[in-house]
Amino acid sequence: MALELPLSLDDQAGLPLHRQLYARIRLAILEGRLAAGSRLPSTRALAASLRLSRNTVATAYDQLLAEGYITARSGSGTYVCETPPEELLHIGARTAGVPAAPLVPAAPPLSAWAHRALAGRIHESPYRSDQTLPYDFRDGRPAVDHFPTDLWRRLITRRLRSPDLTQFGYGPSSGYPPLRELVTDYLRRARAVRCVPEQVLIVNGSQQALDLLARVCLDLGDSVVVEDPGYLGARRAFAAQGARLLSAPVDSAGLMVDELDLAAHGPDPRLIYVTPSHQYPTGAVMSLPRRLALLRWARAHGSLVLEDDYDSEFRYTGRPVEALQGLDHGDIVVYIGTFSKVLFPSLRMGYLVLPPALVEAVSTAKWLSDRYTATLEQQVLADFFAEGHFDRHLRAMRQVYQIRHDTFLEALRRELGDLILPPQGGAGLHALITLREPVCMDALVEDAAAVGVGIYPAHPYYLCPPDRSSLVMGFTGLSETAIEEGLRRLGGVLRKAARTVDHGLKAGVGTA
Amino acid sequence: MALELPLSLDDQAGLPLHRQLYARIRLAILEGRLAAGSRLPSTRALAASLRLSRNTVATAYDQLLAEGYITARSGSGTYVCETPPEELLHIGARTAGVPAAPLVPAAPPLSAWAHRALAGRIHESPYRSDQTLPYDFRDGRPAVDHFPTDLWRRLITRRLRSPDLTQFGYGPSSGYPPLRELVTDYLRRARAVRCVPEQVLIVNGSQQALDLLARVCLDLGDSVVVEDPGYLGARRAFAAQGARLLSAPVDSAGLMVDELDLAAHGPDPRLIYVTPSHQYPTGAVMSLPRRLALLRWARAHGSLVLEDDYDSEFRYTGRPVEALQGLDHGDIVVYIGTFSKVLFPSLRMGYLVLPPALVEAVSTAKWLSDRYTATLEQQVLADFFAEGHFDRHLRAMRQVYQIRHDTFLEALRRELGDLILPPQGGAGLHALITLREPVCMDALVEDAAAVGVGIYPAHPYYLCPPDRSSLVMGFTGLSETAIEEGLRRLGGVLRKAARTVDHGLKAGVGTA
Repeated sequence: MALELPLSLDDQAGLPLHRQLYARIRLAILEGRLAAGSRLPSTRALAASLRLSRNTVATAYDQLLAEGYITARSGSGTYVCETPPEELLHIGARTAGVPAAPLVPAAPPLSAWAHRALAGRIHESPYRSDQTLPYDFRDGRPAVDHFPTDLWRRLITRRLRSPDLTQFGYGPSSGYPPLRELVTDYLRRARAVRCVPEQVLIVNGSQQALDLLARVCLDLGDSVVVEDPGYLGARRAFAAQGARLLSAPVDSAGLMVDELDLAAHGPDPRLIYVTPSHQYPTGAVMSLPRRLALLRWARAHGSLVLEDDYDSEFRYTGRPVEALQGLDHGDIVVYIGTFSKVLFPSLRMGYLVLPPALVEAVSTAKWLSDRYTATLEQQVLADFFAEGHFDRHLRAMRQVYQIRHDTFLEALRRELGDLILPPQGGAGLHALITLREPVCMDALVEDAAAVGVGIYPAHPYYLCPPDRSSLVMGFTGLSETAIEEGLRRLGGVLRKAARTVDHGLKAGVGTA
Repeated sequence: MALELPLSLDDQAGLPLHRQLYARIRLAILEGRLAAGSRLPSTRALAASLRLSRNTVATAYDQLLAEGYITARSGSGTYVCETPPEELLHIGARTAGVPAAPLVPAAPPLSAWAHRALAGRIHESPYRSDQTLPYDFRDGRPAVDHFPTDLWRRLITRRLRSPDLTQFGYGPSSGYPPLRELVTDYLRRARAVRCVPEQVLIVNGSQQALDLLARVCLDLGDSVVVEDPGYLGARRAFAAQGARLLSAPVDSAGLMVDELDLAAHGPDPRLIYVTPSHQYPTGAVMSLPRRLALLRWARAHGSLVLEDDYDSEFRYTGRPVEALQGLDHGDIVVYIGTFSKVLFPSLRMGYLVLPPALVEAVSTAKWLSDRYTATLEQQVLADFFAEGHFDRHLRAMRQVYQIRHDTFLEALRRELGDLILPPQGGAGLHALITLREPVCMDALVEDAAAVGVGIYPAHPYYLCPPDRSSLVMGFTGLSETAIEEGLRRLGGVLRKAARTVDHGLKAGVGTA
């Protein structure tokens, strides 16, 4: 009765030998190589055949006995248990720990939410690949090379050296209380947001804010007004929740509030999602009359306004525009902010300022989603605020981005001036660049990538197809040299594309 | 035409004077103290009256002009804009930045999900307060004072010193790829989980795993089997999603699979939630025949099994029990693990091992929920694994907890032996302690707290009221001395309570 072990035991494997032996025998039972009821060799015989100590074998057998794989019959030896054989055969179809052949393509039924969530992916920009290009004008990328990592490291170190162990345990789902206070102070003085700390909730970036609000506010079939063009992460969260998206057009003064009556001819929309400080992606600033009209409209229709203030900290001409939330009583605007742009995206930290009536529901949703946001990061961020580093870093980044913004606009004029409409810059981390002539976008993206330039067409952000081809171009993640060289190369590519269109080779190819 | 400013400008305030002036005038306009159409003083007059430079006033006016609050009429001066006055009055009801009087209690309609989520809170244990007691036997609290913070700090420091800046940017929603590989290796060798890295998804703790699965798998009215007693965080996530909870009883061999036919008399349950390695809160280990029967039942009914392996790393008698997932083909069991117990809760890190057919839907749900988990923590955890610290820490904690476990059981016998049933220890971070005689639980909790002892009744975890009073007692978060002293004090309190009941003063008070 030789026990065939599939592999020799390996004393380099880090696992004790008795444990390896146990696992091999267990596998042999599960795969049916050791049939139910069959007799195992004695510990002495197996130890001899495998050159193991008898104790090792006995320990492995004990474990198998304890777990019910084998059974010991007094005076007669050790046997594989009589577990239902079809179950063992069933299980034996695959090898433990090493999924070899393709897995059985079982498809558990998905919820309606999951189907909608998956359907949303096809509306994602197809241009966001994982490619690394030296002149990548992807938007929303802060200059992480200017982040004060040494300082951040010192703050982490200090917190980790503190004898206060509460930072390792469970924390409140609304966030670390001192951070909520510091964010409140900041929003009051820098963004004219009207709030008390009880209204502020710390979340894992603005996507979580959008998702929590979608869950707390939207039932299947509810309407949500979104800007057209607009931010896809918001649209996808609302659509997955089963909302009907009503698109409202955007002009140079932001969301066209007069169009809301046309857009919302059915039941009143539950939510109106806006980016008033720096419309995504057009860059428009919502004018004061529009802001007041929007609040009036929302109040009249019982809609909640979600103000996504994703990059308003950066304004290069004029003064910062203040938050829409500050114009309200504090009960119909939810303010959403993020640290992804001022600090760095992978911190995964953002915040919500909620009308008091929503605080309990949204904190409960946060608890159910992931209980609370990691504490150490919240504490370090609180220290970063409390010791003035946040304001200092923001000032420093404004200078860095101001230079990049000016360099970008200047190089655009120089290299592409005749090919594009005069761009509207002045704020944020990106600008919308509109081409004078239609081009084949897919070809342009490909040709640009071939010379190391990453560009991102704007049409995926439109619900109504736009009149002209345009690009969303980030200018904060590249050095000035890279901005200039990238735009020089893009100019060459665009000029070639324009010539090709002129020569009729791609006639009829308009907005992709 | 004097402009009454509500407060004097303060050059200590950190804001430039022109900005303070701007804010004061804006507020005066919004509150109606400066009426629409009224004329502002000239920059010269205002500068003189406020003792500011004329330039400061001009800058403030420029900003107000740019934002549409005031308008300049050529040759005639500067006027407050003619914005609809009722809107301004409306807005003026409160002071910007300082929410004074109670906020208008507007109640925006909540979604059905939010109503269910809020209703779930009343099922939460009422005994979980924020009190800090010296002898707190709250469960699920690892000995964070034994966490190697110096090492962790060094790993963070090394990562923050690395010139690789990708850690600051956006990351993949399924997790940091090297960490997914290391978790795969660990689960294969330590837990006999069958998986490849593509099946592993990094999430913010096990609550996010439960929530993502609830969203992806459950529609309104779908059935979910839960253990009774069982974990509230799971139950609440399913209930919020609108699931019908079917409770299946638990005995000393875990979920009673034979009872499933009785419990699930309607449509087949979509999910079966189990804690087979260490049932929460009873501590039962699911036997192999039960495991096989559960998989057979789930397969026959098309149910997905969620295996929550929340503290299986710790077993003090016998060998670790392997994962239920390893007995399956890899297509009907979802394995959920967490680092909250082995490392620390506020790391907010856990993982899912998904059947291949669910990977895309759950990653999409993760993207919509919060895009991805913070990168630095994932990288540091990957280093902690790759350099053998994880295994070393786990071994060290097993020794620490073994001693605390043994001390706890020994002190229980000594101090409370006659008052309780023989406890089932042997694993995890807590044990269920059943009292021989009924007591008034609320009074017991209060009396224990009065002598510094935190205890947590188990009845909130039961759907069917239990026969006897019991406590869920964590023994890992306290030192041996604290365990002994805490139990000595608890013995005193319980003895007094028992005498009180004997004397008939609280006759008729059974399980609270």
